[in-house]
Amino acid sequence: MISQPVMAQTPLNLMPYPLKVRQQSGTFRLKELNPLSVLGPQSQRIRTAARRFLVRLAGRTGLDRPVRDIAEENQQPLVQIRFQHTVPRAHLEMNESYRLAVTPAAIRLEAETDVGILRGLETLLQLLQSDTASFYFPCVEIEDQPRFLWRGLLIDVARHFLPLEVLLRNIDGMAAVKLNVLHLHLTDDQGFRVESKIFPRLHKMGSDGLYYTQDQLRFLVQYADERGIRVVPEFDVPGHTTSWLVGYPELAAAPGPYEIIRNWGIQNPVMDPSKEEVYNFLDRFFGEMVAIFPDPYFHIGGDEVEHKHHKAEHWNQSERIQKFMKEHGIRNNHELQAFFNRRISRILKKYGRIMVGWDEILTDGMPDDMVIQSWRGRESMVAAARKGYRSILSSGYYLDLNYSAEEHYLNDPVSEEDSLTREERARILGGEACMWGEFVWEENIDSRIWPRLAAIAERFWSPPTVCDVQDMYRRLERISFQLEELGLMHEKNYGMMLRRLAGYRDPEALRVLLDVVEPVKGYRRNQLKPHTQLTPLTRIVDTARPDAKVAREFCWLVEAYFQAGEDEQKMLEKEIRSQLLLWKENHARLRPLLETSPVLIEIEPLSKVLSRLAEAALEALDATAEKTNMDGRWKKHVEALLEQAEKPHALVELAVLPAFKWLFGSSDVMGESR
Amino acid sequence: MISQPVMAQTPLNLMPYPLKVRQQSGTFRLKELNPLSVLGPQSQRIRTAARRFLVRLAGRTGLDRPVRDIAEENQQPLVQIRFQHTVPRAHLEMNESYRLAVTPAAIRLEAETDVGILRGLETLLQLLQSDTASFYFPCVEIEDQPRFLWRGLLIDVARHFLPLEVLLRNIDGMAAVKLNVLHLHLTDDQGFRVESKIFPRLHKMGSDGLYYTQDQLRFLVQYADERGIRVVPEFDVPGHTTSWLVGYPELAAAPGPYEIIRNWGIQNPVMDPSKEEVYNFLDRFFGEMVAIFPDPYFHIGGDEVEHKHHKAEHWNQSERIQKFMKEHGIRNNHELQAFFNRRISRILKKYGRIMVGWDEILTDGMPDDMVIQSWRGRESMVAAARKGYRSILSSGYYLDLNYSAEEHYLNDPVSEEDSLTREERARILGGEACMWGEFVWEENIDSRIWPRLAAIAERFWSPPTVCDVQDMYRRLERISFQLEELGLMHEKNYGMMLRRLAGYRDPEALRVLLDVVEPVKGYRRNQLKPHTQLTPLTRIVDTARPDAKVAREFCWLVEAYFQAGEDEQKMLEKEIRSQLLLWKENHARLRPLLETSPVLIEIEPLSKVLSRLAEAALEALDATAEKTNMDGRWKKHVEALLEQAEKPHALVELAVLPAFKWLFGSSDVMGESR
Repeated sequence: MISQPVMAQTPLNLMPYPLKVRQQSGTFRLKELNPLSVLGPQSQRIRTAARRFLVRLAGRTGLDRPVRDIAEENQQPLVQIRFQHTVPRAHLEMNESYRLAVTPAAIRLEAETDVGILRGLETLLQLLQSDTASFYFPCVEIEDQPRFLWRGLLIDVARHFLPLEVLLRNIDGMAAVKLNVLHLHLTDDQGFRVESKIFPRLHKMGSDGLYYTQDQLRFLVQYADERGIRVVPEFDVPGHTTSWLVGYPELAAAPGPYEIIRNWGIQNPVMDPSKEEVYNFLDRFFGEMVAIFPDPYFHIGGDEVEHKHHKAEHWNQSERIQKFMKEHGIRNNHELQAFFNRRISRILKKYGRIMVGWDEILTDGMPDDMVIQSWRGRESMVAAARKGYRSILSSGYYLDLNYSAEEHYLNDPVSEEDSLTREERARILGGEACMWGEFVWEENIDSRIWPRLAAIAERFWSPPTVCDVQDMYRRLERISFQLEELGLMHEKNYGMMLRRLAGYRDPEALRVLLDVVEPVKGYRRNQLKPHTQLTPLTRIVDTARPDAKVAREFCWLVEAYFQAGEDEQKMLEKEIRSQLLLWKENHARLRPLLETSPVLIEIEPLSKVLSRLAEAALEALDATAEKTNMDGRWKKHVEALLEQAEKPHALVELAVLPAFKWLFGSSDVMGESR
Repeated sequence: MISQPVMAQTPLNLMPYPLKVRQQSGTFRLKELNPLSVLGPQSQRIRTAARRFLVRLAGRTGLDRPVRDIAEENQQPLVQIRFQHTVPRAHLEMNESYRLAVTPAAIRLEAETDVGILRGLETLLQLLQSDTASFYFPCVEIEDQPRFLWRGLLIDVARHFLPLEVLLRNIDGMAAVKLNVLHLHLTDDQGFRVESKIFPRLHKMGSDGLYYTQDQLRFLVQYADERGIRVVPEFDVPGHTTSWLVGYPELAAAPGPYEIIRNWGIQNPVMDPSKEEVYNFLDRFFGEMVAIFPDPYFHIGGDEVEHKHHKAEHWNQSERIQKFMKEHGIRNNHELQAFFNRRISRILKKYGRIMVGWDEILTDGMPDDMVIQSWRGRESMVAAARKGYRSILSSGYYLDLNYSAEEHYLNDPVSEEDSLTREERARILGGEACMWGEFVWEENIDSRIWPRLAAIAERFWSPPTVCDVQDMYRRLERISFQLEELGLMHEKNYGMMLRRLAGYRDPEALRVLLDVVEPVKGYRRNQLKPHTQLTPLTRIVDTARPDAKVAREFCWLVEAYFQAGEDEQKMLEKEIRSQLLLWKENHARLRPLLETSPVLIEIEPLSKVLSRLAEAALEALDATAEKTNMDGRWKKHVEALLEQAEKPHALVELAVLPAFKWLFGSSDVMGESR
């Protein structure tokens, strides 16, 4: 009974895939929506989850909900729920395991905790299927529990503010794929997003009026907790703090005045670790914040003060700081930051908080219970584990860098190569996907988080043996659409953004093109064109989606074509040709749109290249069929096209390029010239 | 310079169309987004509107916003704004007029008030166009002011609760089409949606936990006011009050206990006008509410206590009430309600509020300043005006009845036929579209309100001479897409709902079908299938949209075909044939979806009928071309199909039926049999 998503039976559309699944014959038929019966202690979590479960089930099945969500005695229940105790507040060590048994007569969901029941209800919703007769759940026995305790998503609300409802709908999405930590990056050079009653100039001068009130944050924490999700706040210090310094320049190493930073990248402004008032300030401010964020873990950032390509200039230039360092025997800026961190850690300890920080805080003299979040790479996570610190991995899970779900999916927090001891291995708590905010706002953030995050969630929850990429994508597509019922807009905002780009004309030809391009990857976007906080995120690059599905599937199609036998190959060739024909003709169809739109004109070269590549690929297929060779001029033409296609245009890249290379490279027509 | 949207020049996509438009040659080119300069008193409204204006403009043009929205001296402004005074709070008599002048060198926007400036900024955003070179505003001089003072939308949040953000995005939509009253129907038998601190059992027992906090409502009022929109609250008494009586049964005419009503239609529970404690209760409760809703107008509902098909049974059956009526010489239930209303009117007067109510409150002894909202028909509005009361028209503007934009558009609050004196005419304040809540929730409400509301907004704002239906639809389509930038989901939720209906399979064939059906009209839906508050609104009827665009355009196409000359007719016939062919083949394409979905199977008969009608219409076109007649069997077959197509299926109706009838009826093939 080892977990394997690909099986002989109808494969179940579960994600993350459970630890143990035993499929059985038969179905539980949904004729009406009865209430859920609950055996266990009082739980607000279960009461509200029952409502949400029934609303979603009613939405899909068209069946009326019952008036009461929880069954009274002697009422026929839809799901029989049993759990032992209520988790008072979601926390790192809470038990999330559950057992789910569907038989033709009953659905039983059991767990030690109410949070485990939430996880099981999500699995049950993913099991729903239908035939002509009715909706049904297939009979199954599932035993499930997470592989890692810490399964998180970081959302950066500092670079671009996100309205509260954006966070709420993403919390619902997280719960649907069994994630359990929302890490809020609340402050940075470009914005301070939390109301402070003690230091009101923080949000009043540091946010452009775009911040969360304390009531909103309390509501958010409660909302997340009801879904079994912890909220870990991050207040990044001593660097990344320009927005604090606008209102409180006295905290800074350099005199100021400061303004909110509008561009992206590492900035010079930094707090002054030599000033006692900095610690007093942070003591009072953190005291205010711990009353809002009850989770024992508290993130202090700590990244990028001094860095390979960035010196802590304001520290170097301050006579006061240089004097302070000499007096205290502090030899360099790393030691100065370590000094700062030790002071901070004492403040947090006073408030009963455990410090979390980025790799850079891994210095001597820090508390043993500190948690390191690794952004720089697996090595620093492994180093932390070896030194006895607990850690979480974020390197390899940066959603803002536009890599494919596959790349994230195959990045495992624990690798055999690290050869950790069992004890060291146990210190790796899990991972966090990071949604940094430079290039997202309320319209496009969902499409940067989803559906890729669901694949990462599976990596954090499921056994490492669940790693079939094709099957992951198959399940991911369905889960992605299901997530829409939670209000997520990753799918539906695509059409809206296309319509606006097209100036409200028919965007179909634009869609055909953008379906096969992806935003440039890594940190290339801002290198190609420096953006600021005032740059609208409504252009082609913002509309195009990472891990473009149509492109991926065309690449698979061409791959399958080269591996197929003769008969199958003919069938696949037909499919390939029809796709190529569409692209060949698309540039002419798109041209009228391009010509009336200054925001579209930048994509013209790429549209033309795609059209010509498709034309050439059709010619190559013809030549292969006719066993003729193309002449040198043609080959030169294709090479020039490929060269052009390699370059980014409009900050996007052509995601079908590998398929074209195979079509040209592996066919005889180009073969001899290579 | 009379307003005429159809002109020789490129027609402008303005809606509501302004009073006076003088188009001129030349354009104002947008090279960068400069801040707006403002000459006038301080205005929070202008400060926030400038930000929103620039964000929307940046979103469309891809140009960076300026760091500051309001220009400092000597800065080159994008728009030169000048106004005389700030409206302290949006109110009925506020001046909303503005003048907008675009020249190649400058854009000048002038108004008496800051609210007038808001209206002008919306017009300016609608003027935006583009060519290869850049985005631009065409040179134009506009003088504009509304025809009616009261231009509203009622949203019923009682039948189905709507999250706050649904109201907020619709307020933005209202502002975009220059509406100025949001009428919130806050309580009804099925829900009490306002937090009361004085009588907490109202929201705690009457709302299923779905209500607005007072803080949220204050925020909403402020949000609307910033957009020049008044919020008029409605607390419907003495009928439609079951949700009040759940927590406070002592207010009722019958003893109770009461439960929240789940089904639709007029209910018996009603307040007891003979009890002094009812007036004390309402006095204290209204006192609490006027602190939240500052608008001088306060709506007390008053509808459907006694009604043609509905007697006030609880009044008739109460000995106490019967005795009270005798003692006070009250002869019937209408007089009893009038007594109640007079008491209420005194309470409202004490709080400085002007009473608004539905037709039924038009009884003797009411205060002169009362406003009547007519839902029963124009006659009662006219009657009110004759009796000296001011009134607003809602009859003919019920969005929940699924009529076309055209029907609402051609319904004018003032008609020559009413032959009112100038004084009586002046008492007609305007109108309100009504979005009653039985069949809407957060997913589909936008598609019931938009885009049709924009056509109604034009009726309330523009001169009555602006009434070209084809041109209205042309402009409406563009405005509809523009409204998406405000977060409205009328367009994008269609695809999402189709995907869910299709069980996350490709919904294309389903889209082809649902593109040409409309929800049944009037009150037919609940007659065909009684719904309750627990019925999910995710089915075919909820996904299909009123005033189906594809259907409307096919009907126009067929109409044009019959009116065309021979050459044009051939071209149009080709278009018609290609559409018919798509429908003919669609049933086979849809069948695999139907067969795995219990929520789709109800549409199968209609899908089949459409397919066969299309087949028959193609045969009819062939016969016409070949100048042959169809035989009697064929005619019988077509008649049977038409008969079937007349019936609703899955609570929707086939909106292309008129076109089919023309194709059959006007062609020779059917001609002789009729």
